[in-house]
Amino acid sequence: MNNPELLAEHRSHHLTIQTDFLLEKIIDAWTQLQTQQPLVQCITNSVAANYTANVLLAAGASPAMIDNPFEAESFASICSALNINVGTPTTEQMQAMRISAQTVTTKNTPWVLDPVGYGSFLTWRSELVDSLVPLHPTVIRGNASEISALAGNQVISKGVDSSLNSAEVYIQAKKLLQYTECVAISGESDYILSKELDLIIQVNGGSFLQPKVTATGCALGALIAAYCAVTTPTIATITAHVHFAIAGQLAFGKSKNVGSFNVAFLDEIYSLTPEKINQHADIHIIKF
Amino acid sequence: MNNPELLAEHRSHHLTIQTDFLLEKIIDAWTQLQTQQPLVQCITNSVAANYTANVLLAAGASPAMIDNPFEAESFASICSALNINVGTPTTEQMQAMRISAQTVTTKNTPWVLDPVGYGSFLTWRSELVDSLVPLHPTVIRGNASEISALAGNQVISKGVDSSLNSAEVYIQAKKLLQYTECVAISGESDYILSKELDLIIQVNGGSFLQPKVTATGCALGALIAAYCAVTTPTIATITAHVHFAIAGQLAFGKSKNVGSFNVAFLDEIYSLTPEKINQHADIHIIKF
Amino acid sequence: MNNPELLAEHRSHHLTIQTDFLLEKIIDAWTQLQTQQPLVQCITNSVAANYTANVLLAAGASPAMIDNPFEAESFASICSALNINVGTPTTEQMQAMRISAQTVTTKNTPWVLDPVGYGSFLTWRSELVDSLVPLHPTVIRGNASEISALAGNQVISKGVDSSLNSAEVYIQAKKLLQYTECVAISGESDYILSKELDLIIQVNGGSFLQPKVTATGCALGALIAAYCAVTTPTIATITAHVHFAIAGQLAFGKSKNVGSFNVAFLDEIYSLTPEKINQHADIHIIKF
Repeated sequence: MNNPELLAEHRSHHLTIQTDFLLEKIIDAWTQLQTQQPLVQCITNSVAANYTANVLLAAGASPAMIDNPFEAESFASICSALNINVGTPTTEQMQAMRISAQTVTTKNTPWVLDPVGYGSFLTWRSELVDSLVPLHPTVIRGNASEISALAGNQVISKGVDSSLNSAEVYIQAKKLLQYTECVAISGESDYILSKELDLIIQVNGGSFLQPKVTATGCALGALIAAYCAVTTPTIATITAHVHFAIAGQLAFGKSKNVGSFNVAFLDEIYSLTPEKINQHADIHIIKF
Repeated sequence: MNNPELLAEHRSHHLTIQTDFLLEKIIDAWTQLQTQQPLVQCITNSVAANYTANVLLAAGASPAMIDNPFEAESFASICSALNINVGTPTTEQMQAMRISAQTVTTKNTPWVLDPVGYGSFLTWRSELVDSLVPLHPTVIRGNASEISALAGNQVISKGVDSSLNSAEVYIQAKKLLQYTECVAISGESDYILSKELDLIIQVNGGSFLQPKVTATGCALGALIAAYCAVTTPTIATITAHVHFAIAGQLAFGKSKNVGSFNVAFLDEIYSLTPEKINQHADIHIIKF
Repeated sequence: MNNPELLAEHRSHHLTIQTDFLLEKIIDAWTQLQTQQPLVQCITNSVAANYTANVLLAAGASPAMIDNPFEAESFASICSALNINVGTPTTEQMQAMRISAQTVTTKNTPWVLDPVGYGSFLTWRSELVDSLVPLHPTVIRGNASEISALAGNQVISKGVDSSLNSAEVYIQAKKLLQYTECVAISGESDYILSKELDLIIQVNGGSFLQPKVTATGCALGALIAAYCAVTTPTIATITAHVHFAIAGQLAFGKSKNVGSFNVAFLDEIYSLTPEKINQHADIHIIKF
């Protein structure tokens, strides 16, 4: 096996099998989501609240935007997954985030942390995120700027939009696996770092129009949480990204304009099928 | 009249007349809404705010989302109706709800209470609702779980979505008529309990896609409030439900997918006509 | 030149040239927005947050809804423009508005003030607006009722919708030019008062369906802010209104119904071109 060509062939063969294995798991996760319709608590921002709820409903989950500190503990105790998104935090929402995160950690309920805008100009939320990360979120997801900054790099971000390319930063993100099962970086290609598989999964698809619709990343975080309620963190994170990538790609086939694209996107989130997953999922496995 | 067949015929005849009578009143209420465009104060949740305002505008009303405690009294003094929805309450919104409810009660302005998520896991809002019910909301509306819980039953709800069927709970809801003119339960069929008519009105229509669009129930509550500004509580509540049921049914005729269904739904809310009401309203009268 | 006909011809010729001059500037501003994609901080209401972000993204800008007082100073220091909209203020948002307005004033960063609901029944926000106006917003924009009330007139408004016609109040608005570079009044026709040009610019277009979609005025205010980041206040304000007027007009050509109109409107905001501006911009210059 020291022949490099043979080795490459072997690896290529090996990786093909793994991709097929992942496809089966993705289809199973999607099927479970339709069956179980898990209750997902979302503490999210004012821009994303309506859109996130609609994406979760269309995907098959049951959203509940419980974001006050007075009900955070009791509700986090019964939800099947939790999504924390720090887009437009209020003091009360911050308290709710802390309480809910602590509660689900105690209950071993999966939760996703979406550190929107993490970085130097937004200190208040960044300090909150810094205090939540040691609670070991099941998945941390963000754009390239946010994940790079969270991994300790100096990033000049542009508000809440990324100034970096996902392909540039996924190696930096590895150090975050000490705090979480999965790190997901969305961008032109999405990269998912899995502690369980010790691999990076690249997900292609979507459309360049997706960043032109606000809160798509926020809704993706909530969908990861929903899938975490029905499968392992790695499969959940990959499945949510594949769900979005296929929906974005098929919606772009229907409309090249941003308003009607968004309508078609929700239609495609709702009408995913195992056949579409088999036909359109574009995933690649990358060794660390 | 002791012949059961004759009695049934008589009753059937009698009820047909009543349904026609209601249809006339519904058309009149819709016409009044277009003419008067009443100002409706909405204190609602972050998921529903935009959608509710768009539904009210499309239906013919004039929404104003005044939800801070510092303007609650002065604005509730001049609005034509008030909608209180406890979906994602903040401390300031809760204060605004109390003040506005007390103000409209004093002014005899109609108001609707929508106890989103009422039940055991969401104690904070449930206590608020418990304190508002004795102020005698004009209409209380909710899904089957919420209304059943509010009527004193033990309900294992699923977040803010219903775990019960509206047909199962409408009898339980009768005891709530001591606090309100109408109780409305939305579901596959909607049931409206009227104190004035001492009857239950069943409204059919809509589409199974409606629960797949978030905040439709919330917007329905606001539309009931709008109609309360132009007609009696019973007719207002029936008309709002018929408006929604027809719009949902006709929208489903245009689109079977959730994103485009929602666009078509707003189109149909906007383009209701007396002819469509006459042709599509599906209401049934049930004796207690 | 005392011949009135000659004078009229001269003026007409002169004004034609000015309109062409403005058209060039409008196209240049639109081009700059696509190139620079300025970062626009928006402190806006719960109804408008999602819609405003989507309009800014579709138009070419980069929105960031940073509305908490703890990040207001640091973020206002780096944004390219600020939009303050008092639609549904919270105590924390009010603090953020004050801090951000003071910060951008110090930095000479342009900002827009949108005094939603200004008037007698909404005292709390009106007092806030009164305290912000002396900080000299770059542009003040509102509907006819709000601008008339802000100019000191007694107005019986209807909630947050206008009870007056824009054509009736633009002369009253002149006194507000002591506090700002531009005053913009939206309505069936839009009127923009420019201190720089000492002129009023009337913008026609749009559709009667625009007021049937909530938050269009709010999104317009944010778009003015975005354009202020790339051109002068006068050209920015005119360009934003022309952008909206053309999008509304072309969207109405595609759909006469409110839900699908709104989808088409976002499509048209996204797909504006210099050719469409040249073909459809309908602007008139009015001497004070």
